[in-house]
Amino acid sequence: MIIATERARRPDDFKPVEEPVEEGICPFCEGHEKQTPPEIISIRNNNSLPNTPGWDVRVVPSIKPLLKIEGSIDRRGKNLYDIMNGIGAHEIIIETPKHIANIADLEVEQIEKGINARIARIDDLEKDQRFKYVLAFKNFGRAAGGGKVRHSRSQLIATPVTPKRTKEKLAGSRRYFEFHERCVFCDMIKQELDSGERIICDIDGFVALAPFASRFPFETWILPKKHSADFTRLEQPQRKDLASIIKCVLQKLKVGLNNPDYNTIINTAPFRRPKAGYWKTIDEDYHWHIEIMPRLTRVAGFEWGTGFYICPLPPESAAKFLRELKV
Amino acid sequence: MIIATERARRPDDFKPVEEPVEEGICPFCEGHEKQTPPEIISIRNNNSLPNTPGWDVRVVPSIKPLLKIEGSIDRRGKNLYDIMNGIGAHEIIIETPKHIANIADLEVEQIEKGINARIARIDDLEKDQRFKYVLAFKNFGRAAGGGKVRHSRSQLIATPVTPKRTKEKLAGSRRYFEFHERCVFCDMIKQELDSGERIICDIDGFVALAPFASRFPFETWILPKKHSADFTRLEQPQRKDLASIIKCVLQKLKVGLNNPDYNTIINTAPFRRPKAGYWKTIDEDYHWHIEIMPRLTRVAGFEWGTGFYICPLPPESAAKFLRELKV
Repeated sequence: MIIATERARRPDDFKPVEEPVEEGICPFCEGHEKQTPPEIISIRNNNSLPNTPGWDVRVVPSIKPLLKIEGSIDRRGKNLYDIMNGIGAHEIIIETPKHIANIADLEVEQIEKGINARIARIDDLEKDQRFKYVLAFKNFGRAAGGGKVRHSRSQLIATPVTPKRTKEKLAGSRRYFEFHERCVFCDMIKQELDSGERIICDIDGFVALAPFASRFPFETWILPKKHSADFTRLEQPQRKDLASIIKCVLQKLKVGLNNPDYNTIINTAPFRRPKAGYWKTIDEDYHWHIEIMPRLTRVAGFEWGTGFYICPLPPESAAKFLRELKV
Repeated sequence: MIIATERARRPDDFKPVEEPVEEGICPFCEGHEKQTPPEIISIRNNNSLPNTPGWDVRVVPSIKPLLKIEGSIDRRGKNLYDIMNGIGAHEIIIETPKHIANIADLEVEQIEKGINARIARIDDLEKDQRFKYVLAFKNFGRAAGGGKVRHSRSQLIATPVTPKRTKEKLAGSRRYFEFHERCVFCDMIKQELDSGERIICDIDGFVALAPFASRFPFETWILPKKHSADFTRLEQPQRKDLASIIKCVLQKLKVGLNNPDYNTIINTAPFRRPKAGYWKTIDEDYHWHIEIMPRLTRVAGFEWGTGFYICPLPPESAAKFLRELKV
């Protein structure tokens, strides 16, 4: 659990209130560069200067960082409890200079530039020896925890520990590998392509599918067909293919489900991964993938209490609906 | 993941729509007994007949069960995937004959009767050898996944497997016990009572506190001070004390936070627990407790991706605010 002091609020602030409608000038639009912290990197045209117009993608620090960049981690105990400082990095990727809300509505080339920016930033954050992982994710819409400003952007958070959920995924796929000497994701992709019933799209080296154990209706995973543990090793031609399948899936969700709010999460191998016994590295047993979770249902007591999810729609029905939808 | 076929919906059903307001007759009110399935048990006065007026608490089967009572579990594989039938029980505890929405507004004696009904049902479900666990929980309000009808009720779901989250809690407390030969919850209670800074109320053998690692603002745990792994072993005088502290905490949340939606979860030891090495049973290392989670913030991509939670309010501030609030 992270206590985010930059976001600290008084108890009175939690009384539910009507949310104000969006108003004023969007700080993420071209021409408003001075309304954000100075950019960390940008993808720019024609030799324009940093923090001026002329960019395609900008990456800026979050103004409300969940974790802060300065300081040491200082792991320690306090009686029963384990404490460390909230060290990390929290960056915002502004995915378009135009005031467009949904990344689904960007051109493929523009989405690809956002992928390039993510990879450049993750590669740079890996050099900081304090960090174990970077979570790249998107909160689109209020039900997904997104901000009020309707301008397409994603987030990167570098953490000083490998996230619990990442560890669980790594441990599960390693157990499978130790038994079968094959990647569980590669086996799953082959089986899903053979059966076809949960496939949503299959484009140029990537596949989008409704996972057999979908937690949410229309949950979608995008996976590279070629084995790779590490999202940042994606080569340039593949990045455009990834952008294409992302646009395809998100357009289908937008059109088919009336522009739902959603989260996306890139799951990739952590930094500085250990050698695994007599297998070379963790790279053999893990397989990066993107999870897309439309926020159509609410998580309630049963899910919180058990860690099990109730999905009211079989993944085969969700996949068929999305597969057959023309966008 | 559970595919709940009783709740199966067509893909079109997931397009967001305005929710209709509550209307018509409440099926949970006294006099409307015919609008629910026949009761499993009830707590009744003056020899009134089942499924007629004259009750204090009724337990009925869910009309939309997540798991169904008939059949065998039939664990099996299908290529890569593990499947079992959705066998279980799903029951609704109607906590009052009156049309009162929030259990916080019931009398202590009435809350105690609901505790009696829960324990009677869990004890009965334990006799079914197919079941490993019963999750007792409440979804209050729409943000917590609750139903539209504003009549106080809770749910019981018996599952044929021990829930993932229960296993994690059991494993964590067992590791602590193996090292220290003490219950981690007993140690935590002692430490929290000594410091006092995260205590919300301390009444007659129970303590309510804001956990050090609160995932949500105003998350509250209620624990018996006397060690016990099993909620159903609660003796009669203690049940009234538990009802008192539940009312105290929920009234504080209602008054202090403007009647928020919330979930409550009873965490207790699973059925048929194994003997643990040279320790006698799991009963030594686990300690039942109730989690109360007001739904004031949204879970977003970072939480889904990492399994870490961002809490914008330190638990000491939450506890102080609730502790000092007069109800």
